[in-house]
Amino acid sequence: MSSTQAASIRRVVADAVTEDSPDVLAVEEPLEIRLAIPGPGHRAISITMRTPGDDADLAAGFLFTEGIIKSPNQIKQIRYCGLGIADSGMRNSGGLSPDRKGNTIRVDLNTEFDIDLKRLERNFYTTSSCGVCGKSSIEALHTGAKKLEHLDQPTIDSDLIRLLPERLRASQDVFDQTGGLHASALFDAHGELEIVREDVGRHNALDKIIGAKFLADELPLNEKILLVSGRASFELVQKAVMAGIPIMIAVGAPSSLAVELAKEFGLTLAGFLRGDSFNVYTGKSRIV
Amino acid sequence: MSSTQAASIRRVVADAVTEDSPDVLAVEEPLEIRLAIPGPGHRAISITMRTPGDDADLAAGFLFTEGIIKSPNQIKQIRYCGLGIADSGMRNSGGLSPDRKGNTIRVDLNTEFDIDLKRLERNFYTTSSCGVCGKSSIEALHTGAKKLEHLDQPTIDSDLIRLLPERLRASQDVFDQTGGLHASALFDAHGELEIVREDVGRHNALDKIIGAKFLADELPLNEKILLVSGRASFELVQKAVMAGIPIMIAVGAPSSLAVELAKEFGLTLAGFLRGDSFNVYTGKSRIV
Repeated sequence: MSSTQAASIRRVVADAVTEDSPDVLAVEEPLEIRLAIPGPGHRAISITMRTPGDDADLAAGFLFTEGIIKSPNQIKQIRYCGLGIADSGMRNSGGLSPDRKGNTIRVDLNTEFDIDLKRLERNFYTTSSCGVCGKSSIEALHTGAKKLEHLDQPTIDSDLIRLLPERLRASQDVFDQTGGLHASALFDAHGELEIVREDVGRHNALDKIIGAKFLADELPLNEKILLVSGRASFELVQKAVMAGIPIMIAVGAPSSLAVELAKEFGLTLAGFLRGDSFNVYTGKSRIV
Repeated sequence: MSSTQAASIRRVVADAVTEDSPDVLAVEEPLEIRLAIPGPGHRAISITMRTPGDDADLAAGFLFTEGIIKSPNQIKQIRYCGLGIADSGMRNSGGLSPDRKGNTIRVDLNTEFDIDLKRLERNFYTTSSCGVCGKSSIEALHTGAKKLEHLDQPTIDSDLIRLLPERLRASQDVFDQTGGLHASALFDAHGELEIVREDVGRHNALDKIIGAKFLADELPLNEKILLVSGRASFELVQKAVMAGIPIMIAVGAPSSLAVELAKEFGLTLAGFLRGDSFNVYTGKSRIV
């Protein structure tokens, strides 16, 4: 499956109407993630709407950032259901017919690790007494994520921050075509772009990045800088915190809970990066 | 709870740095939706990150657009867990302390209706044989939604479409402050704004609108026009289709599956509404 699809549209500009213009759409397809555990068998644990490509990274990143698996050693194999092995980083544009087979991915776990299956169910059914709150959502992460210890490392120059969006745009292949994708990009401490992923779901774009690094056994990402194209939600900051990322910069605005979570775990969170200006919400000591 | 929160930020503009500027954030808090069924008892069926306000509408809209309830008569009462009744349309800014009690909402159902509890579980655990695909996602909606019968009704003038974003902006109270919220707005066939909702989650903004109309027993919304501030995903078009909305206009781009779904159910889908121009993806006969 490709990440773009051709379409025929009617374009209306002021009073001029063009019939049947060619256009390009960002592809959105469901991905069912299954966890295969020796003994209990396999079960579907998530269906996410995503842009096809890097599905093994997406599955691994999702399982890690949700706290279900902790180490790449726990994974025996990741493959498409009924098909071959889904390599990390492999764009599944070749070899697969564009049908449902490429939309179910199976993560086989090794026997010697215990998986907290209750944790899976907690994601969906809660039996707690009356009430949830932002604070409890943040506390729940303390089981899987560590507070960052060094609140002044790494540092990044504010001039460098302003250069990051342009470096991201230069490497984006689909966005300029469709306008329909969110992007996440990981930079090293010198501002060199390491990996960029685009997806209709911004949580997927970030899971694909974290999953690729997780499978390469490169976590925690304690020296990296994350740039996200949209707004900074609780969910995106949660994923960054799980991966140990110290600096996260959003093009858009953060939410209240995203700022609270970043503060709690010592993450530097900046937002509203437009042209020459941006806002710093937490962890100001890393920006020089 | 309020929908905005004060914050202190560092603003960096070119080489000038302002310390401790006041800023305003969009509030994000979890909402746990519980379904209370006489007999089986009550169970938590969803936790969504949302901006507080209109929570009863959000719960009702979610349950309806997910196909779990079909009629407002099925609902006996909607209330915050441990607190009073949550009126539809009530902004819960007064009377509630900003704690977890306002984050769990309980929907009490009447006895005489059967609820397909299996449908709840299907949302989370699938037991289907190998494979999902966009086509199967669309087919699944045929149980809960109807195809629109009149592909040329209602009609809307393309000049009117270009006016809608300005009418939305004029009524948005939070967006201009935080830049962190998505908006959905419902207009009548003459372009008069009927209801607008803002939320950190765009699916929540739409659920709040559909839920308010559902509780007022005003579905299907066969004569209405929906405007959404961001991109048009499968999920947003799904909700519009469930509510019988014939015309949906997105400020951003639609995905491939959003276009396929709109085509299948006879929805007019336009996007990329910027200044004087927009694109029409499906249902061109309603735009004159």
